[in-house]
Amino acid sequence: METAFKSIAIIGRYMSPASLAQAHLHTQAQAHAQIIELVAHLSAKKIKLCIEENTALYTGLSEHRALLRYEAFSIDEIGQHVDLAIVLGGDGTMLSAARAIVPNNIPLVGINRGRFGFLTDISADNMLPAVDEILAGKCSIERRMLLSAQVIRNGELVFEGCAFNDIIIKSGLRLIELEVYIDNQFVHKQRSDGLIMSTPTGTTAYALSAGGPILHPKLEAIAIVPICPHTLSNRPIAISSASKIEVSLVQAESIHLSLDGQIESTLQQGDKVVIIRAEQTVPLLHMQGYSYYEMLRNKLNWG
Amino acid sequence: METAFKSIAIIGRYMSPASLAQAHLHTQAQAHAQIIELVAHLSAKKIKLCIEENTALYTGLSEHRALLRYEAFSIDEIGQHVDLAIVLGGDGTMLSAARAIVPNNIPLVGINRGRFGFLTDISADNMLPAVDEILAGKCSIERRMLLSAQVIRNGELVFEGCAFNDIIIKSGLRLIELEVYIDNQFVHKQRSDGLIMSTPTGTTAYALSAGGPILHPKLEAIAIVPICPHTLSNRPIAISSASKIEVSLVQAESIHLSLDGQIESTLQQGDKVVIIRAEQTVPLLHMQGYSYYEMLRNKLNWG
Amino acid sequence: METAFKSIAIIGRYMSPASLAQAHLHTQAQAHAQIIELVAHLSAKKIKLCIEENTALYTGLSEHRALLRYEAFSIDEIGQHVDLAIVLGGDGTMLSAARAIVPNNIPLVGINRGRFGFLTDISADNMLPAVDEILAGKCSIERRMLLSAQVIRNGELVFEGCAFNDIIIKSGLRLIELEVYIDNQFVHKQRSDGLIMSTPTGTTAYALSAGGPILHPKLEAIAIVPICPHTLSNRPIAISSASKIEVSLVQAESIHLSLDGQIESTLQQGDKVVIIRAEQTVPLLHMQGYSYYEMLRNKLNWG
Amino acid sequence: METAFKSIAIIGRYMSPASLAQAHLHTQAQAHAQIIELVAHLSAKKIKLCIEENTALYTGLSEHRALLRYEAFSIDEIGQHVDLAIVLGGDGTMLSAARAIVPNNIPLVGINRGRFGFLTDISADNMLPAVDEILAGKCSIERRMLLSAQVIRNGELVFEGCAFNDIIIKSGLRLIELEVYIDNQFVHKQRSDGLIMSTPTGTTAYALSAGGPILHPKLEAIAIVPICPHTLSNRPIAISSASKIEVSLVQAESIHLSLDGQIESTLQQGDKVVIIRAEQTVPLLHMQGYSYYEMLRNKLNWG
Repeated sequence: METAFKSIAIIGRYMSPASLAQAHLHTQAQAHAQIIELVAHLSAKKIKLCIEENTALYTGLSEHRALLRYEAFSIDEIGQHVDLAIVLGGDGTMLSAARAIVPNNIPLVGINRGRFGFLTDISADNMLPAVDEILAGKCSIERRMLLSAQVIRNGELVFEGCAFNDIIIKSGLRLIELEVYIDNQFVHKQRSDGLIMSTPTGTTAYALSAGGPILHPKLEAIAIVPICPHTLSNRPIAISSASKIEVSLVQAESIHLSLDGQIESTLQQGDKVVIIRAEQTVPLLHMQGYSYYEMLRNKLNWG
Repeated sequence: METAFKSIAIIGRYMSPASLAQAHLHTQAQAHAQIIELVAHLSAKKIKLCIEENTALYTGLSEHRALLRYEAFSIDEIGQHVDLAIVLGGDGTMLSAARAIVPNNIPLVGINRGRFGFLTDISADNMLPAVDEILAGKCSIERRMLLSAQVIRNGELVFEGCAFNDIIIKSGLRLIELEVYIDNQFVHKQRSDGLIMSTPTGTTAYALSAGGPILHPKLEAIAIVPICPHTLSNRPIAISSASKIEVSLVQAESIHLSLDGQIESTLQQGDKVVIIRAEQTVPLLHMQGYSYYEMLRNKLNWG
Repeated sequence: METAFKSIAIIGRYMSPASLAQAHLHTQAQAHAQIIELVAHLSAKKIKLCIEENTALYTGLSEHRALLRYEAFSIDEIGQHVDLAIVLGGDGTMLSAARAIVPNNIPLVGINRGRFGFLTDISADNMLPAVDEILAGKCSIERRMLLSAQVIRNGELVFEGCAFNDIIIKSGLRLIELEVYIDNQFVHKQRSDGLIMSTPTGTTAYALSAGGPILHPKLEAIAIVPICPHTLSNRPIAISSASKIEVSLVQAESIHLSLDGQIESTLQQGDKVVIIRAEQTVPLLHMQGYSYYEMLRNKLNWG
Repeated sequence: METAFKSIAIIGRYMSPASLAQAHLHTQAQAHAQIIELVAHLSAKKIKLCIEENTALYTGLSEHRALLRYEAFSIDEIGQHVDLAIVLGGDGTMLSAARAIVPNNIPLVGINRGRFGFLTDISADNMLPAVDEILAGKCSIERRMLLSAQVIRNGELVFEGCAFNDIIIKSGLRLIELEVYIDNQFVHKQRSDGLIMSTPTGTTAYALSAGGPILHPKLEAIAIVPICPHTLSNRPIAISSASKIEVSLVQAESIHLSLDGQIESTLQQGDKVVIIRAEQTVPLLHMQGYSYYEMLRNKLNWG
């Protein structure tokens, strides 16, 4: 059979032995068994398989190396060698995998243990039939936007990164003071716990907890959501994804810049954070019949 | 001097003698004096003037007919005879004027007594200098989207209309039950006080009171905001303005359809309301230096 | 065996044949079977049984009159003849039963089909064992407060009533204008869709949908929750239940006063609504081991 | 003239020379002039004056020592020597002064520069007439509750403190996991940015920004407000002030305990924070005619 994808990367949840100790061992064993099942299934179909090296290391895959044909690559290199990436894990695993392989512009699909997530379309129970449908081409690609953040300090670029969900400027303590400019126009000086700049994808994550709206992924928009703003009329706002947001730190004591929930940089007074739409997009692969609204309904218990 | 506009419509707040009785007479007299001042000013510049007929009738303009050259037209006809409309009043007056003249595709600008509104850019204090700048072409046009609503009953179209701010399905009593479909996909069955479909322009009006986000007017989006939803996770959502929203009334006791706050139709069980972006847009005229964010900051006391 | 209660009222969901037609017949039949099961169970224990007359009429109980010993009374009289009332139905049935029998000061307990409700502690699956525990005295009483509303028009009392959940002043149209006074002090003039005055019990009902807080039933408090207020800083407030709230209708077009969701009165401009804690309380009977927080956790899916 | 208070403490905003450098010098000079004006005014009335030692040091009062009779005490001792404390500054200054002198059970009144605050009743413009009215006994006392927090680690008490506004458990990073028990009953496991336990006084401060309700100061209640909770139905709840709240830290990476906005303790996994009403209360002195609702209306722009 001719398959839609000839070479596939498999990326699991990163689990060092240290964190393993904390995790429930039984759950962990099931997750590993599932990865091995997937590798065996694809191996039998003569698909070229590339396994993310930590996934291979920690799941016990290497013990079956005699039987299972695959190569191992680091997360930063794996995208060059495949034309599809399958991620096993939760939305967090999807986010970091997506950012790592975004330069390679290959489609990404997620398999979630238990119920599916906002980003992981396929339930573990349905893994093998779903993968077969994908190989048969019964799927479609949706391009999702990313945000890019730059930190400018005294006129110099001191940090640059991109986020699939959100870029967050937030204090570890209580109140921060920011000035927000959009497209070079002053918006306001804000006192709050922080500020979230979210892609449509990210609007169902942290931004939702902070009171932000849900933006449909097709919307070319960025949501700007204040966290516990001092002024009660400081409400979430959504702007065009073609806009440039600049946030100046009027006062900055232990303020962090997070991308997709990972603290990436500690900001200083006078720092300017510039947020724009990234050039790259993430090609998410969906099964036939995928409905964004059905996913929302299930995940948010609108039933 | 060559002016940017040769013929101008003037539309005031509609005030029948009945409502006049209720209004503060002093405020009313000032509003009338302001209209007369504007008419006199433009009249002296040889601009062709068309006055909305009720405005002419109730403001006492007709008493000065010997001095002030103008023609009177109904709100539905006035747009054909001019290339600019100046509205004196609040956001409510702007909304109804905009809907009335939208087929004529002429720019619209608002003058507000006291502080300016979300839609009325010019403060009364600054009326004459502002008008002169507009005549000198120191202004720009921003196209704002409208929504169109159709009510389908037993397969027949029983109502059709458009809204500049919002389309609201709402009960006069307590709880209604709706089914929402977007682009022919089922979204959810909702129990709530009602549902707001808002243009970006309307997101600073009723939708904001109901907890909706602010959408920048450049965003090609529709905000869908539930009013007091029974399910707490039923949050506001913004979708592409190219989408089609269908709302089915599962249960309907005294449910109204409002367009820009005017009740237009009483709905029945089984009715389907179809909402899409309207074909026409409203060309709003802004002064040089207009900033949407400055307006938000002032109106919402973000200072 | 000596039981804690000698005479028990049974009150079911009021179902006229008209509404029956609308309901799912199968569900209805199950509800009736359950009532008959309860009557038979209690009848065998020599408990004196009083059945609410419509419940007796519509559930088919009367067909078994030869076998099942009971008397039938109207909802307004039934409380005089018993020392416990068992309600079968949802929270709505509990609300109206509680208001009807409140003068008799007898405890009330609810049995809910399917999952239990905020007020109906006992699941249908567990009905008979639970009832036996109650008869064995393995239960406790919690007194819940009620609110009383009076409408004053031109100095005359034109309406009086009480509510277990909430008193709502609300417009069928869009915006109303109210003046609120608490303990004779002016609070504010509010423009909104309406205002909810809620007992702690009612804070998990409509007030929660409108953004109000949850008040624990032990708290001697009234929650005042604005519905879609025009001013974004108009937030819910909780005051002492010893306070007196007065709401004056500045402007009143089609404004209703609802008690526990039932429209009771149409208000006019100038009307004053006075809300205070009612003298009576509702004695809710809970099973041993009842936890308010467990109930919240289950009903609000905090799991 | 016999005055209601014979000895008065004066407590200003604490300003070390370091922070002075940051502050606007002109504002600072005005604040100092105001304190000197107050001291001179009271000194002339033969009131015994005790100045908080840093206030005396940093405001230049000591330069006038020849003319102005006063003694200087540390904030912790000053309360023993007086029967009234006047605080000049904002709500923050009031909070720390209140906590420091609470063991002495003396009334406290605040004078705010510019507009008054939630706690500082007297505007600077009206300082001297207001102080004279207070001395003439035209005032009343309102007792406000405090909260007490204890941190238990491995069965040992490792921290104890009290708060006038709020006790906050919060992460410097993103998500924390807490278990909440009230009166020894399990409430829920919560994933959020943190949790606020607020007195009624504190409900107009940080808790309001986080979406909490306003609780009237007379209400014997504690508000529990989650900060950006992961579960959207996790809403603010108000409970009796007689209740005991226990929060267990399921997972704790860089989690802080703050009292009135001051970080007091870093928490560890397994720590239990116990919050109850403190034994002491703060006697707030109000001018005749003080209205809590008027203050709310002014501060929250309900006008």
